[in-house]
Amino acid sequence: MISNAEIKWVRSLHEKKFREREGAFIVEGEKLVREALNSGFEVLHCWWRDEIGEQAMSRISCLSSPSPALAVLRQKAEAPLPAPGGLCLALDGIRDPGNFGTLLRMADWFGIPTVFASPDCAELYNPKVVQATMGAVFRKEVHYAPLPEICAQWREAGFPVLGTFLNGENIYQTELPADALVIAGNEGSGISAAVAEQVTGRLTIPAFGGNGAESLNVAAATAIVLSEFRRR
Amino acid sequence: MISNAEIKWVRSLHEKKFREREGAFIVEGEKLVREALNSGFEVLHCWWRDEIGEQAMSRISCLSSPSPALAVLRQKAEAPLPAPGGLCLALDGIRDPGNFGTLLRMADWFGIPTVFASPDCAELYNPKVVQATMGAVFRKEVHYAPLPEICAQWREAGFPVLGTFLNGENIYQTELPADALVIAGNEGSGISAAVAEQVTGRLTIPAFGGNGAESLNVAAATAIVLSEFRRR
Repeated sequence: MISNAEIKWVRSLHEKKFREREGAFIVEGEKLVREALNSGFEVLHCWWRDEIGEQAMSRISCLSSPSPALAVLRQKAEAPLPAPGGLCLALDGIRDPGNFGTLLRMADWFGIPTVFASPDCAELYNPKVVQATMGAVFRKEVHYAPLPEICAQWREAGFPVLGTFLNGENIYQTELPADALVIAGNEGSGISAAVAEQVTGRLTIPAFGGNGAESLNVAAATAIVLSEFRRR
Repeated sequence: MISNAEIKWVRSLHEKKFREREGAFIVEGEKLVREALNSGFEVLHCWWRDEIGEQAMSRISCLSSPSPALAVLRQKAEAPLPAPGGLCLALDGIRDPGNFGTLLRMADWFGIPTVFASPDCAELYNPKVVQATMGAVFRKEVHYAPLPEICAQWREAGFPVLGTFLNGENIYQTELPADALVIAGNEGSGISAAVAEQVTGRLTIPAFGGNGAESLNVAAATAIVLSEFRRR
């Protein structure tokens, strides 16, 4: 029920180059595939392990233990850039697919529909990203765009552009606006210089350790920042 | 400057079985190795890429791009179980090494010295855990122990045992104690039934999406919970 040509095609989609050429991407896992079928994304193919067998499934799977279902969906064309406003998240150089997916999942939890990503971020349709989003990939509008320009647009429209830095205002004691563009920076190097120049407010999550802890990872820091925005 | 026997020995430490037998573990990365040298852990060996060459380094390294430094340290004997009290974290079935390490790093940030881990958690000395802790591995006291018993001890000593559940009290509106044992549950299945029975308070982080987001990952959820404890 799956031809060799199809196997070859799905395997090619493990690579970004072919995902882009084919405008397609892979979704795996019973739960995620079921969600995919109801997501509004065009489903090009869907295979179940029960039908094609363990061996064929392990040949097309991206996972170390092949799941019961794998679907190939058509990538969505990026929507036009939305006007500034609301609470939005901008990912600045989040290269790790797991972190990138986790941040989209978090945006989903906190009711943030739109996420901007700098062009050097992980690819939205990387199977590891898709997996880590736990379905948020179907619900978020992700725009790859140069962040300094996006930030400048928000500033010019009168909206705050906020990032976390080591030397900012204590986030627990700062008044937070309802609308803002929140920047999450690269785990190693933080928010890039060109984006930092556009920031209108610098926030800090205070450390309580006092024993050498230098940083939180980007997912934890962003979770705390978004939690502070939403709880108030 | 590194013998074949040494290369073989370090490579054996990539596996848990040999780490346990040798009572040793690997630390990699220039920053982490420098920290290791000042950590109070006994350093059994330390190699620099400059000295042993790229090729030897790549043979002993656990990383896909071998770093400039690798040290082998002696594992610390577990300290006796501390008496209940203070703010502590208990990890219930955190099997993913990256998550486990990230949670230790977070404990470090939030000034939590002691972390309990159920026996089915990732191994503290797994190289991926060590890497993800960003040095917290040198500063935290980690106790592997059956969590239901630990929880029972805390309860009996009159301290709250708190976990996050889908049907708990809104954490933003709940009074939080200064001392508590906070449980972080397995990413897929959450807090185990035997531990849940021992919980004295159920907390919930409310979702703001209303569009299908089902959960936060354990690192994000724990970051928010610890942030709520510490900011007040």
